[in-house]
Amino acid sequence: MLSIAIAQLNFLVGAVQTNLDKMIHTVEQAKKQNIDVIVFPELSLTGYPPEDLLLRNDFLTESEHALKILASHANNLIIIVGCPQFDNEQLYNCAAILENQKIKHYYKKRILPNYSVFDEQRYFSAGNEVYILEYKQHRLAITICEDIWQKQIIAENKQAGADIIISLNASPYHSEKIHLRQTLISQACKKNKVPLIYANLVGGQDELVFDGASFAVDSDGEIIFQAREFEEHLETIQLHQQQLIKSTLTQLYPRIPAIYQALKLGVRDYVTKNGFRGAILGLSGGIDSALVLAIAVDALGADNVEAVLMPSRYTQNMSNEDAIIEADALGVNFHNIPIENAVNAFSGMLEDIFKHTKTDTTEENIQARCRGVLLMAISNKQGKLLLTTGNKSEMSVGYATLYGDMAGGFAPIKDVPKLLVYELAKYRNSVSQVIPQRVIERPPSAELAPDQIDQDSLPAYDILDPILELYIEQDKSAKDIQALGFKTEDINRAITLVDRNEYKRRQAPPGIKITTKAFGRDRRFPITSGYRGQLK
Amino acid sequence: MLSIAIAQLNFLVGAVQTNLDKMIHTVEQAKKQNIDVIVFPELSLTGYPPEDLLLRNDFLTESEHALKILASHANNLIIIVGCPQFDNEQLYNCAAILENQKIKHYYKKRILPNYSVFDEQRYFSAGNEVYILEYKQHRLAITICEDIWQKQIIAENKQAGADIIISLNASPYHSEKIHLRQTLISQACKKNKVPLIYANLVGGQDELVFDGASFAVDSDGEIIFQAREFEEHLETIQLHQQQLIKSTLTQLYPRIPAIYQALKLGVRDYVTKNGFRGAILGLSGGIDSALVLAIAVDALGADNVEAVLMPSRYTQNMSNEDAIIEADALGVNFHNIPIENAVNAFSGMLEDIFKHTKTDTTEENIQARCRGVLLMAISNKQGKLLLTTGNKSEMSVGYATLYGDMAGGFAPIKDVPKLLVYELAKYRNSVSQVIPQRVIERPPSAELAPDQIDQDSLPAYDILDPILELYIEQDKSAKDIQALGFKTEDINRAITLVDRNEYKRRQAPPGIKITTKAFGRDRRFPITSGYRGQLK
Repeated sequence: MLSIAIAQLNFLVGAVQTNLDKMIHTVEQAKKQNIDVIVFPELSLTGYPPEDLLLRNDFLTESEHALKILASHANNLIIIVGCPQFDNEQLYNCAAILENQKIKHYYKKRILPNYSVFDEQRYFSAGNEVYILEYKQHRLAITICEDIWQKQIIAENKQAGADIIISLNASPYHSEKIHLRQTLISQACKKNKVPLIYANLVGGQDELVFDGASFAVDSDGEIIFQAREFEEHLETIQLHQQQLIKSTLTQLYPRIPAIYQALKLGVRDYVTKNGFRGAILGLSGGIDSALVLAIAVDALGADNVEAVLMPSRYTQNMSNEDAIIEADALGVNFHNIPIENAVNAFSGMLEDIFKHTKTDTTEENIQARCRGVLLMAISNKQGKLLLTTGNKSEMSVGYATLYGDMAGGFAPIKDVPKLLVYELAKYRNSVSQVIPQRVIERPPSAELAPDQIDQDSLPAYDILDPILELYIEQDKSAKDIQALGFKTEDINRAITLVDRNEYKRRQAPPGIKITTKAFGRDRRFPITSGYRGQLK
Repeated sequence: MLSIAIAQLNFLVGAVQTNLDKMIHTVEQAKKQNIDVIVFPELSLTGYPPEDLLLRNDFLTESEHALKILASHANNLIIIVGCPQFDNEQLYNCAAILENQKIKHYYKKRILPNYSVFDEQRYFSAGNEVYILEYKQHRLAITICEDIWQKQIIAENKQAGADIIISLNASPYHSEKIHLRQTLISQACKKNKVPLIYANLVGGQDELVFDGASFAVDSDGEIIFQAREFEEHLETIQLHQQQLIKSTLTQLYPRIPAIYQALKLGVRDYVTKNGFRGAILGLSGGIDSALVLAIAVDALGADNVEAVLMPSRYTQNMSNEDAIIEADALGVNFHNIPIENAVNAFSGMLEDIFKHTKTDTTEENIQARCRGVLLMAISNKQGKLLLTTGNKSEMSVGYATLYGDMAGGFAPIKDVPKLLVYELAKYRNSVSQVIPQRVIERPPSAELAPDQIDQDSLPAYDILDPILELYIEQDKSAKDIQALGFKTEDINRAITLVDRNEYKRRQAPPGIKITTKAFGRDRRFPITSGYRGQLK
């Protein structure tokens, strides 16, 4: 019988000493539970992804030093931990095996992802050897994340005599990911008749959320252990005669609640890991800010969130009323600052330059930017993070004002398309009513001009969102999209706006990836571009 | 005798049809000059770098189609052109050889850079074959950019019987690059006794400038042809009995004028390729905005540039006077809009929330943001690009206001450290006097508080800039820097600010890379980070 513990923990990128302390604490806990092997996720000593910190020798030296200290705690159990390591002047993404207070071996990750949000070939060389750890009559094959997404690697490990495969991961969340992971791994385990333990990181890091959701699969491909998602914990699985013993099977969140949890964790970790005293946001009475307020309060507590209402002459009474209802429902302190004085000041200052010109979006942008100045002033004065409230549909087509409603340090729903905003709002209301029904039902409006609604400028969201998903997430051509029955006019309007607004997105704050392709590190488009995808 | 033409041209990323038209025009020109072989740079059909456009099938299909059309023009000469190409479901960075109106061969780039600004392994698979084109009794080896930075590749090509090596490049500029290139290649050519023709792209693309500066080296390692830098042209080199005939040797720009040219080209191409009607900028009377104004005017012409003076109660008369002198010297139209009314409006609106709080940088930021709102309003109304004027020293330590002086679409001197700003200003004045001497001589100030100068908050620039270069460009540790004689206090102040201000840089507009490591795609640091590099 072998007890293997998964340390599904939340580490801070760059904070090697803090991460080490947490590991030592966990190892000491594990010893009390008579654990034989404890597994920390991929690169957990440095946090994932450390990005260009990996180009700094001082950082790598610190990590190497920390590993030695951790090794000194490896008595009466084996520690397997993800860390970077040089060998012959090449850097590798390793799993260090610590035994008898020594570093016994470095397993080198073989498959280095360099797509989507991943840049591992920027930093690492690829290993090319199977490693099997023999311990108490068991043969444990070690792999890291992407390795097992290549089917032949699991087969190779089995052929090399592995009783079980241990997989260290830093696998970021998107709404389809857990299903992808489990299907793929379950099939491979069944085919190769080998069990597998999947240990994943948990926590938010800039644009990424690691969902945890560690699990184990037996040699029939059955999931026999499922850890809680979006939470830290240490759980143990027993290996007996080359078979894993069935244990805790936590129910996974359904799709919408899982996305909500991911957003909550992403916000919480961005705020706390960056040392902010809390968060503020502009509350307009619209659905987007209502949802962001709920997420922020659920993530940080009502006392740490502050709302600011900033009505203009175009704000309907209903909007301000709804905003107040939202703040009250969640118990959040709010300010009410009409923006008219600032808008008038700018109009006066620009009168000379703008005479003989027509009113256009410039005037709308001035209003949004006055709000940006107010929110940033409060954020600066109070040390609270300003959250932006723009959704993915808006970010896609540039329906947002740079330095206006786009001003802020973090954009919780930047990767959430408008239709999904509604689903999340309804879900949150099903937990407890915090968003007035009419906010969900009325047509969305930026309220920057008289009687304005979003559909004056954009296709309806039930048309726009599917087009955007096809164009952005799936890289479909306009022709492919047309073949699915969408109108030429809607397609051309949508994709022209997507192409033209890369410059805005480049200056947007980071937000949480929840789809298969988010803006930011995940989608790298040139700003200067002659590409025109629209239909002729 | 073989006539080989280098088409050192400026292509637009994504604009396959436009690029094709330009190529056809150039090929027809070459035919009139009885050219045997014409060489277009790396990925010139798509522009470089096309980034995630390479993940779009419609884009790749368009490029493939364009290549066939270009091939139809390959009669009486050979065309060698950089383009992406699929083979067996893998994408390659290729040089297509077009002969007798057909695609004769695709040479596949063997060494794919994935460091610094390069992400080629995100898109491409690596080729593994030498290719020698036999034509009129000559044997031409084809290589692409990074290939020849690996010495064994030149040796392999020589061993395979090459008379000459043709190298297609998209090699971005930084101030040391041309020396690096020429030294390395000259040595390799001499060692392997083989001549080489180096064809490079020219033009600005977002953060990158391609400097052109194509050249040829004979088998003794001597440079026997040197093209002009930062300009388009078509030049011909003769190969006779396996030796290149000596031809035009343009004098290279010295370091400072070369940087100035790079900045000028970067600004010109960003503005024109993105279809702006011109540029505007805030002119403060300080050295940074003075330099950016001169670059913008030299790049775009005085008629296409507009300056805005926005004095506050902290602006010295001298500053406004100097700004006017600068605008007048360059013949630029300017506006003068005091910001007091807007600042007062915000102060009034925030009075309640801010009572019982102390004045801090919040109030300074409000001033900077009022200027941002004004400049963006003028930019929006007139369709002119707003240029920011922050330098690299400021960007490094976050001595700038997000959505204030950082508001704008392009940041020409973002990668220019403050001391280099002075050198460039002096150089520009040596061409013609456009910046008043006292602007160069007085201590720099943000003028956001009474009697403020930069050195109140920062180490002197002659201390700060070298520390920043060591820490950012060279990734040196605080200890390494200390060993060079800098004070602990200065080091800690500088690097703490660098680490803490990643969030600002992430929202900064793109700017032109001129050093070995620029912010943006070139330096990818996490925002959320526990890394603390300072001395204890």
